[in-house]
Amino acid sequence: MNPEIPRITIAEAGRHAGETVEIAGWLYNLRRGGKICFPQVRDGYGTIQCVAVKSNLPEETFEKLKDLTQESSLIVRGKIRAESRAPGGFELDVESADIVQRVPESDPYPITPKEHGIDFLMDHRHLWLRSRRQHAALKVRHQVIKALRDYFDSHGFTLVDTPIFTPAACEGTTTLFEVKYSDEENVYLAQSGQLYSEATAAAFGKVYCFGPTFRAEKSKTRRHLTEFWMVEPEMAYSDLEDVKRVGEEMVLFVIAGVLENCQEDLKALERDVSKLEAVKAPFPRMSYDDAVKKLQSKGSEIQWGGDFGNTDETLLTDDLDRPLMVDRYPAAVKAFYFQPAPERPELALGVDFIAPEGYGEIIGGGQRIHDLDLLLKRLEEHDLPREAFDWYIDLRKYGSVPHAGFGMGVERFTAWMCGLEHIRETIAFPRMLYRTRP
Amino acid sequence: MNPEIPRITIAEAGRHAGETVEIAGWLYNLRRGGKICFPQVRDGYGTIQCVAVKSNLPEETFEKLKDLTQESSLIVRGKIRAESRAPGGFELDVESADIVQRVPESDPYPITPKEHGIDFLMDHRHLWLRSRRQHAALKVRHQVIKALRDYFDSHGFTLVDTPIFTPAACEGTTTLFEVKYSDEENVYLAQSGQLYSEATAAAFGKVYCFGPTFRAEKSKTRRHLTEFWMVEPEMAYSDLEDVKRVGEEMVLFVIAGVLENCQEDLKALERDVSKLEAVKAPFPRMSYDDAVKKLQSKGSEIQWGGDFGNTDETLLTDDLDRPLMVDRYPAAVKAFYFQPAPERPELALGVDFIAPEGYGEIIGGGQRIHDLDLLLKRLEEHDLPREAFDWYIDLRKYGSVPHAGFGMGVERFTAWMCGLEHIRETIAFPRMLYRTRP
Repeated sequence: MNPEIPRITIAEAGRHAGETVEIAGWLYNLRRGGKICFPQVRDGYGTIQCVAVKSNLPEETFEKLKDLTQESSLIVRGKIRAESRAPGGFELDVESADIVQRVPESDPYPITPKEHGIDFLMDHRHLWLRSRRQHAALKVRHQVIKALRDYFDSHGFTLVDTPIFTPAACEGTTTLFEVKYSDEENVYLAQSGQLYSEATAAAFGKVYCFGPTFRAEKSKTRRHLTEFWMVEPEMAYSDLEDVKRVGEEMVLFVIAGVLENCQEDLKALERDVSKLEAVKAPFPRMSYDDAVKKLQSKGSEIQWGGDFGNTDETLLTDDLDRPLMVDRYPAAVKAFYFQPAPERPELALGVDFIAPEGYGEIIGGGQRIHDLDLLLKRLEEHDLPREAFDWYIDLRKYGSVPHAGFGMGVERFTAWMCGLEHIRETIAFPRMLYRTRP
Repeated sequence: MNPEIPRITIAEAGRHAGETVEIAGWLYNLRRGGKICFPQVRDGYGTIQCVAVKSNLPEETFEKLKDLTQESSLIVRGKIRAESRAPGGFELDVESADIVQRVPESDPYPITPKEHGIDFLMDHRHLWLRSRRQHAALKVRHQVIKALRDYFDSHGFTLVDTPIFTPAACEGTTTLFEVKYSDEENVYLAQSGQLYSEATAAAFGKVYCFGPTFRAEKSKTRRHLTEFWMVEPEMAYSDLEDVKRVGEEMVLFVIAGVLENCQEDLKALERDVSKLEAVKAPFPRMSYDDAVKKLQSKGSEIQWGGDFGNTDETLLTDDLDRPLMVDRYPAAVKAFYFQPAPERPELALGVDFIAPEGYGEIIGGGQRIHDLDLLLKRLEEHDLPREAFDWYIDLRKYGSVPHAGFGMGVERFTAWMCGLEHIRETIAFPRMLYRTRP
């Protein structure tokens, strides 16, 4: 309308104190008296309280603002004023305003300040994302992803994305999604990019893939989604110790990024940031053997040979302020591709990072088999079809080297950063056993 | 073996001239005489020529190196020496070497320096990636992706990943992949994140999603994959002109990153970099009307109302050194969600960026419908099921604003950067109509 008035985001308001600016957003909240009203506007970058005084405005403008409905879209213009009592430290004194679309009283915005059930909110996920806590959680997620990529990009890793359509399973066949690819062929959705990353690591040295992965999880838990994002580094000429070193360094790098860039978001989420600040190197290390003993001494009924459940993971870390690395699991509970420990071949050279505060396993990885004969034996023991793994077997025939890597799920890590109970709030449109909409 | 000798990558060799170092890699090539041999080693970061002199080495070591087979894995130690005639400018004088795995003569590495057919190479894609040109193309791809993310992260966009499992189609139903989600329900794989990004733009202002997308392309062309990666920014309070501005700025940002960081890779690909250096602002702009006239004057048989084919796109740009923006297409050839041009509602406010050198459409986007009634009308006209779009319709009811965005495919853009004929070489494991392996 007025080309001389600059359009700014609310995040930039502090740099424009005393200036007249334009803000385009949505009505987040409204308080009003007879001759004054306070529309609180959000624009995706923050919220700002506006002050509209009846005597300073054309009557029509004041009347429109005074009765404006929640989430109506509007453009306001006015002077930014420092106000120490205001959230954010600034207010806007309205000089003019245009309503872009008024939400009618007859069909009001469905999410009101009152409490709603989780199913209602999930059904309205496309709108719920506008709420402050949801907005904050996804901002933290963005920072987590950015820091992960920055870490690998600055440490000699090449991003090599692996395929989603795959002919064979990596993590067991019961949780596979099948796709009708053509009249002649069905394929599966990738559960992991690892096997392919083993091929690309032999071409690039150190690689990572970073994309969505799919598991038809039959269990309805707060830790599982059917579609989730995973980063998976893989390193040639590396072993189990490299996984521990890189995993620890990466976790610390990401936490530093979250603490540096997401203070406002963590505040909106009421996250106790001292818990994140406490996470420092070195992370404690423990063998599976010792972990079982520790669990038994704490009353768990786990026996040697069993895998840890959620309760076990929480018990293991309840006296810790940082992730615990547990290594050398029984080979029988791990996938076919783990390199056995040389001194005790019944153990796999795998490691899990278990986060504190009950967030469970955030990293799983280890050293892969590089010997051709051993790999062939394991494929047979696991009853896996050799022809589907022909190309994977090739990697052991043509310049095989010791190599290792790990996977980290974005949603669980973000839930830990945010202090969220359920990982469904760490992804924009979660997909679960009974949830494929919106 | 010797903890005092530092392990370096070949890319770091220049910083270690005169020092004894260790390099872990694979045998790329080998020249030999009677008393000397020259193993060329690659490690994923570069290749270096090593010099092994019989009289300086234990006999066993020299014999092993002299007869080493292609792609055998090995660790070499020795002094880095500047050598202006060597590719990369440095050589390594071998002091000791360990063969990690020797590829047997009886089953040699399948890809030899002789020419292989494309089907053979694609069947061995897991190994072909080690070849210099393939390695270079994927390095450029990584840079393209990094630059895209850096551009959006530094321009106020929030990354909000959109779901892959979706209940409804965005770009037409003939190219959908269907997934059996549960006993009760089938879902489709996303062809675009746009509709969801329209929701998140109303929550975050400016957003982008960046992930794999899926189209069951029945045509076997050099420009199509069934699985490809796309970045899709979406902006609230924006219009067609913003798409042109942001698209142009983004393309220039990515090209600058490729030129700055990928000179060696572009050289390996024999790319004429002057073609990329010539791409500067402003990109020429042309209406669809004028584009049809230009095509007709050049002999094309296109009629007003038709969509451009590959030949048309090449004709339109053959006298240009930078992308052409064509806007205001007939609404009839565009998807249901395009905002009509106010002055001529039979035109859609969409724009395509057509790359020079015959690379065709690299960006497609435009302004979306923000009016509720018009959207409902279009859904009906396109015979789309209203209930599947309920949440999308909500966006026009609760704070609707003019908004716009676009999509850019990573593979086509990378093919342009690399000067590659076929996009199958711009992704690690391409998926096409008749190709789902390895």
